[in-house]
Amino acid sequence: MHRYNELFQLFNTELKKEIDNLELREPKRLYEPVIYTLNMGGKRIRPVLLLLAFSMYQKQYQKAIPVAIALEMFHNFTLLHDDIMDNAALRRNRNTVHIQYSSNTAILSGDAMSILSYEYLSKYKSDNYSEIYNLFTQTALKICEGQQFDMDFENRTDVSVNDYLSMIELKTAVLLATSLKLGALIANAPESDCNLLYQFGLNLGMAFQLQDDLLDTFGDTFNFGKNIGGDIASNKKTFLMLKAIEVASESELILLNNLLSNAISPQTKFEKVREIFNSLNIDTITQTEIEKYFNAAFNNLTNLSVENSQKEGLLQIANQMMNRKK
Amino acid sequence: MHRYNELFQLFNTELKKEIDNLELREPKRLYEPVIYTLNMGGKRIRPVLLLLAFSMYQKQYQKAIPVAIALEMFHNFTLLHDDIMDNAALRRNRNTVHIQYSSNTAILSGDAMSILSYEYLSKYKSDNYSEIYNLFTQTALKICEGQQFDMDFENRTDVSVNDYLSMIELKTAVLLATSLKLGALIANAPESDCNLLYQFGLNLGMAFQLQDDLLDTFGDTFNFGKNIGGDIASNKKTFLMLKAIEVASESELILLNNLLSNAISPQTKFEKVREIFNSLNIDTITQTEIEKYFNAAFNNLTNLSVENSQKEGLLQIANQMMNRKK
Repeated sequence: MHRYNELFQLFNTELKKEIDNLELREPKRLYEPVIYTLNMGGKRIRPVLLLLAFSMYQKQYQKAIPVAIALEMFHNFTLLHDDIMDNAALRRNRNTVHIQYSSNTAILSGDAMSILSYEYLSKYKSDNYSEIYNLFTQTALKICEGQQFDMDFENRTDVSVNDYLSMIELKTAVLLATSLKLGALIANAPESDCNLLYQFGLNLGMAFQLQDDLLDTFGDTFNFGKNIGGDIASNKKTFLMLKAIEVASESELILLNNLLSNAISPQTKFEKVREIFNSLNIDTITQTEIEKYFNAAFNNLTNLSVENSQKEGLLQIANQMMNRKK
Repeated sequence: MHRYNELFQLFNTELKKEIDNLELREPKRLYEPVIYTLNMGGKRIRPVLLLLAFSMYQKQYQKAIPVAIALEMFHNFTLLHDDIMDNAALRRNRNTVHIQYSSNTAILSGDAMSILSYEYLSKYKSDNYSEIYNLFTQTALKICEGQQFDMDFENRTDVSVNDYLSMIELKTAVLLATSLKLGALIANAPESDCNLLYQFGLNLGMAFQLQDDLLDTFGDTFNFGKNIGGDIASNKKTFLMLKAIEVASESELILLNNLLSNAISPQTKFEKVREIFNSLNIDTITQTEIEKYFNAAFNNLTNLSVENSQKEGLLQIANQMMNRKK
């Protein structure tokens, strides 16, 4: 993955400079958790997608860097506040901010990160400044909406597969889509390309999240890189579960509901639920849905105005994202 | 206060329209606490200051309304998150959002309000768009910094009067200053007027916060509009306390520290601390400091390029803000 690695390195070098600048700011207790969060690492997928889209139309990255940093800053802000809301103790094998510092620190430093993302955005100066800001802000709001739908779903019994797809689009896919569109906008790409890249990101994000759901139940820990079975253990209403509820017969539904409401060992529950999923072909149905989105994403790329050789970077990263094996 | 009332009504009418729009958004659980917060009322000082400054240079308010709403939205966001951090149960005699709904709701809806303020800001289109955004963002960040300093001070024993003045400047005064400067910027006022209005707001904000400190100890509940003595009861490091520590003799300092660290009835503590304050002339010293800022604010107004009759609105609101009696 030469192209990805190159841009990943480039972005991390620029981010390091910004972290050095943040080190100088006061009060330390506000900025230290921001730096702690940015230093947790991660794949930097959003800024890399932005830089990839940008590089299809222009070569001087410098113009795109502040917006790439704004994206990564905002994404990390959402992780930070989500971790408080989900009461999560660990992220990337390190204490989450509210554990490492305190809840109040996590709230306030998160707020600062959200505003810092606008500070970085404001370093971008160009005629289409207003369009960049609008897209960023509308996306930010959609992510909040997605998070609220996700929390609402925990207490609702009437969530449909379509509700779920709308939620993951808001919570996950729009930011990938926006990363790509921002890259294209900054590079003054043709409007139709900007929109195609947005659609590509949306489809890729949906495919990615559905694959995440699939691997949590049908993957193996070694290749997936995290423990499996968590979704079933916590009765999470994933695509798999909601599809199973949709297609189950009355007797299967009773069996499934019993498994979800009764106190049984996590291992037994996992195996029994997976048995039902197997009998309903949930694995195949989900795989088909993933391929639908993945193919749509590839079609979006096909229609871009640039030469095929220019699309290599995006094809590589899309394949890499989808290439996690079960 | 004709001028203030007129703009207060005007702003509330516009805000009501926006609340009606927010009612239509989904998910309800995200936007309902936003509406609940905006409906809590309040004096709308920041948007009114913005409109007052604007009206000195232009008459068509419509251009300034989205930015006025952005300011009020952002201010209410900070109150919402501050209430979680301070564990406050009531605001304006109503449950705070984290009590009325939940902490998670308060975090996420607050995040949405912060982003919504940028949505309103983005409705303002003009050549100086970038300057408006920058000022707003830098101010937002300063408010976070002020809140962190305030929280830090609770655990520090070395806070100086100057530290305190810097903190209240960040936490309170800059947003009043920015409200005024934004109004002038939107109206294309001369640059020197924009900066004078910023300074006026800064000085007024400092005077206002110091007066708030003074009244909490030397005011009376009837005229002040809230209970007095809260700062002393909670050992808050206000201007009065920090100045007392600065000017106290060694024996007075021991006496004061004993009062702060020993378990005595709030009423006795309040009376004893006030006795020490009286013996140190803290009342007069604070009053002098307030007048210093207030006079500086009036000087800023004097130097504005507009005719004196145009300054009436700001003079009125400044006098009204400072006219709370002890």
